[in-house]
Amino acid sequence: MKAYIDVTLKESILDPQGAAVKEGLIKLGYDVEGVRIGKHIEVELMDMEINEAEKLIREMCEKLLINPVIETYTFRLEV
Amino acid sequence: MKAYIDVTLKESILDPQGAAVKEGLIKLGYDVEGVRIGKHIEVELMDMEINEAEKLIREMCEKLLINPVIETYTFRLEV
Repeated sequence: MKAYIDVTLKESILDPQGAAVKEGLIKLGYDVEGVRIGKHIEVELMDMEINEAEKLIREMCEKLLINPVIETYTFRLEV
Repeated sequence: MKAYIDVTLKESILDPQGAAVKEGLIKLGYDVEGVRIGKHIEVELMDMEINEAEKLIREMCEKLLINPVIETYTFRLEV
């Protein structure tokens, strides 16, 4: 069982890396309105009930994987 | 229109950051089998045809956003 977690900076937090990439894309001629960069984390878990896995992934995010002050996350599970 | 791009290291490439996070999760008592860490990129585009947007995103990935030697990517578009 695998969890795919996307960690993004909250809307109110400046993202200098995203701003730099946006500038780079514009210099290459692409008409982009905004770029935000976050982390993509894939966690391989033992097989278990979906409910249990969701609970575990939320715990892992809140304890280790994200900084709740500046980041937020979404995830999906694949059996 | 928004593109959500997940950039991951190819399977054959070592991921020390992922290995460190895996150790961290195991130390916290979580039974994880593997962790891989990549980038999650959100690009805001002008509205356009889906086909055209897919082509643009692929170009952006290959020209700037990913390193094709060690990374691979998937994306989805949201109108």
